[in-house]
Amino acid sequence: MKDVAKVRLFLDQPLGQGQTVPLSREQAHYLFSVMRLGAGAHVLVFNGQAGEWLAEVTEAGKRGGMLTCRHRTRPLQMPPDLWFLFAPIKKARTDFIVEKAAELGAARICPVQTDFTNSDRIRRDRLQAHAVEAAEQCGGTFVPEVADLTRLDAVLSAWPEGRRLMFCDEALVGAGRTLGDVPRGPWAILIGPEGGFSEAERTCLRALPFGHPVSLGPRVLRADTAAVAALTVWQQALGDWE
Amino acid sequence: MKDVAKVRLFLDQPLGQGQTVPLSREQAHYLFSVMRLGAGAHVLVFNGQAGEWLAEVTEAGKRGGMLTCRHRTRPLQMPPDLWFLFAPIKKARTDFIVEKAAELGAARICPVQTDFTNSDRIRRDRLQAHAVEAAEQCGGTFVPEVADLTRLDAVLSAWPEGRRLMFCDEALVGAGRTLGDVPRGPWAILIGPEGGFSEAERTCLRALPFGHPVSLGPRVLRADTAAVAALTVWQQALGDWE
Repeated sequence: MKDVAKVRLFLDQPLGQGQTVPLSREQAHYLFSVMRLGAGAHVLVFNGQAGEWLAEVTEAGKRGGMLTCRHRTRPLQMPPDLWFLFAPIKKARTDFIVEKAAELGAARICPVQTDFTNSDRIRRDRLQAHAVEAAEQCGGTFVPEVADLTRLDAVLSAWPEGRRLMFCDEALVGAGRTLGDVPRGPWAILIGPEGGFSEAERTCLRALPFGHPVSLGPRVLRADTAAVAALTVWQQALGDWE
Repeated sequence: MKDVAKVRLFLDQPLGQGQTVPLSREQAHYLFSVMRLGAGAHVLVFNGQAGEWLAEVTEAGKRGGMLTCRHRTRPLQMPPDLWFLFAPIKKARTDFIVEKAAELGAARICPVQTDFTNSDRIRRDRLQAHAVEAAEQCGGTFVPEVADLTRLDAVLSAWPEGRRLMFCDEALVGAGRTLGDVPRGPWAILIGPEGGFSEAERTCLRALPFGHPVSLGPRVLRADTAAVAALTVWQQALGDWE
């Protein structure tokens, strides 16, 4: 069993040929008590920058331990330059949206506060942990950063030159609007809150020179469904799904 | 407030102009105790066949009550003829898959047992209730039927003439396979379990004359993510998203 790595772990540490990696108490507990690994066992590790490495447990203790990187198993696979902006909703569905954005290859996850967003704060560390777990589970070698909650108007007024924005809001978009023939390059997706955008936000979004309204079909979708559907539409048309 | 219906309810009863609809004890509890409606209040109701109706509470009691249909607010909107086949996974994610299939317009939801499916039974009534709730929440006028759990090989060997099958399995499909130029008409989508398909299943799926392998990008997706992504890909290409 030692040759088959059953555990895949994100480590915020330098990784490289022969590199030793100290384990925290929590990591040691997970590997040695929960997963019952011991010295000599193999795990797959990644840090979001250096690809994926096969590492060997070279020290196993109750309060810590050591891994040693043996060889690189996969190179870093960067997602396309896609920001994912969404309005946080109920806790479980917000967690889900972050997990799905990480799984589907967003490069950066930006919670935005809109006029109809209920929450005025988020647990950024918790959402970041969900992004890490999604990468661990799904074989990702990159972990998107979860940004701090920022007001939508602030995000839009500081919008970077050259980045396009696909937004999806039934009331705003109307049926049948597709991405069409648009250029690749830096993009962002914006998903509204369950209650939609306010009239002021709609006026603003409609007028954006970098905005691209897209329809997600004739049915009303929950925000978490719209998130996955929008990421799919974008990745298929402009991302790395080919 | 009486003119704005804040509640949307699926009722397994005939609906039509002037039709009275008796309420069960549970429905009366929900409307009159939880939502605090009383006689004269308006609710939106649908039964999956007769579109959506504005109904008035004409009797409100602790153990029951009566609604009277006033006028039809929307016609029945049928989804495309799409079956959604999936292998049940962990409880919360199975519930989620059923919710999303109902939201995204599957006409029929078929749980299938594959070689690597852990569960050998499902709570069909519970999954059906999730499909109903998704329709209630998302303004749907149709509720897809959740079928009984059936073995995949039995489903495939009794496959109906003329129905095509889109399947998505990373190991099976390879990168970059799109739906391409395929006919509309009756279709089905098959999503495998977390552990993928067995070698025997793969051999069988590859040989199906009605099978269409499709890639969902270069990343490994969880089964629930793959479900939403596959429904999006299909609806965009062959469904009613135009």
